[in-house]
Amino acid sequence: MWLQRDVELRPRPRGFHLVTGEVLEAVPELRALRVGIVHVFVRHTSASLTLNENASPDVRRDFETWFTHAVPDGWGDFSHTLEGPDDMPAHVKASLLGPSVSFPVIDGRPALGTWQGIYLCEHRDHGGARSLVVTAWGEEA
Amino acid sequence: MWLQRDVELRPRPRGFHLVTGEVLEAVPELRALRVGIVHVFVRHTSASLTLNENASPDVRRDFETWFTHAVPDGWGDFSHTLEGPDDMPAHVKASLLGPSVSFPVIDGRPALGTWQGIYLCEHRDHGGARSLVVTAWGEEA
Amino acid sequence: MWLQRDVELRPRPRGFHLVTGEVLEAVPELRALRVGIVHVFVRHTSASLTLNENASPDVRRDFETWFTHAVPDGWGDFSHTLEGPDDMPAHVKASLLGPSVSFPVIDGRPALGTWQGIYLCEHRDHGGARSLVVTAWGEEA
Repeated sequence: MWLQRDVELRPRPRGFHLVTGEVLEAVPELRALRVGIVHVFVRHTSASLTLNENASPDVRRDFETWFTHAVPDGWGDFSHTLEGPDDMPAHVKASLLGPSVSFPVIDGRPALGTWQGIYLCEHRDHGGARSLVVTAWGEEA
Repeated sequence: MWLQRDVELRPRPRGFHLVTGEVLEAVPELRALRVGIVHVFVRHTSASLTLNENASPDVRRDFETWFTHAVPDGWGDFSHTLEGPDDMPAHVKASLLGPSVSFPVIDGRPALGTWQGIYLCEHRDHGGARSLVVTAWGEEA
Repeated sequence: MWLQRDVELRPRPRGFHLVTGEVLEAVPELRALRVGIVHVFVRHTSASLTLNENASPDVRRDFETWFTHAVPDGWGDFSHTLEGPDDMPAHVKASLLGPSVSFPVIDGRPALGTWQGIYLCEHRDHGGARSLVVTAWGEEA
């Protein structure tokens, strides 16, 4: 059994955003999977996906602080600067975090840990809407 | 053919630990797969998984040294500090390394390179036991 | 339906290299997949894979600059130094970026975004040829 949906995420400000609900609501049929995998993929090179703490907004703010410290806007050693001071750092951050997350399905439910939520990591100042592809596959109950 | 097992890893000190044996012993039936994938997932936000050098313990110690240098305990710009100086760094490291690893199966064997082992990356000082879900799927011989 | 191929990449200089064509040409049969996933895996611990900007060579050069700044050759706090000043940094970079990329297939085509290409990230000065395993699976049209 295969499920696949495009999910368009509305434009969000630069930073880290919880999108667990939007992703899982796109594939309600995964309730039918006894065992399987969900794969979430972002079709961009300046935004990324990760799993992390789903409770405290502080954690998401601290992510933005640390990543922007590690890969500073307008860093002097970058040569790809035509698209703005936030562009090349966005590419680096996107690869540090990665374009996909995947997690198991057990008895019709995503087997995320209690504190794990899906983050959209928006690395541009004005990234616009972001396209995801959510794919799930497995064995029906 | 689908296999899925919960694997509980005993508490380990902060650092990087080889767990290849524990993971693969959980799914001995993958010997029956002609072709497939193994997906290993950690259900936490302050520990992570990666593949790296399986021979020298120096490499694993150097991982701890570098990651703690890159994301220092008690870093002054973090605001999420209530759970201790190692907590917010653990979240960042967990996302830098990621919550899952996946690798192919060829003729009943994990197609890891000669030097590739599975690391549990324990980012907390007292992280406790860690829950993995190991999922494998593929086509039988 | 399952596809699996070994892909041997010729030796490349240290840096980031676009290999999208070489990877996809190895599995032309994925045209037959209505829905599926492609998983690309590198069997080494000092090279890695990521998806990023496929147009500007500047971006790939800036990746090399940033990663070598973040994990410097011969960094004084590393103890695993016998294999040369680029060895331990290569291991760290390999785990920061990760040993695999995976992306969806929609109607026989890889659902990469317009700007997404597959990078081989070569972290050694003389890494030699690199072995990939490309696995694709899904449902036929």
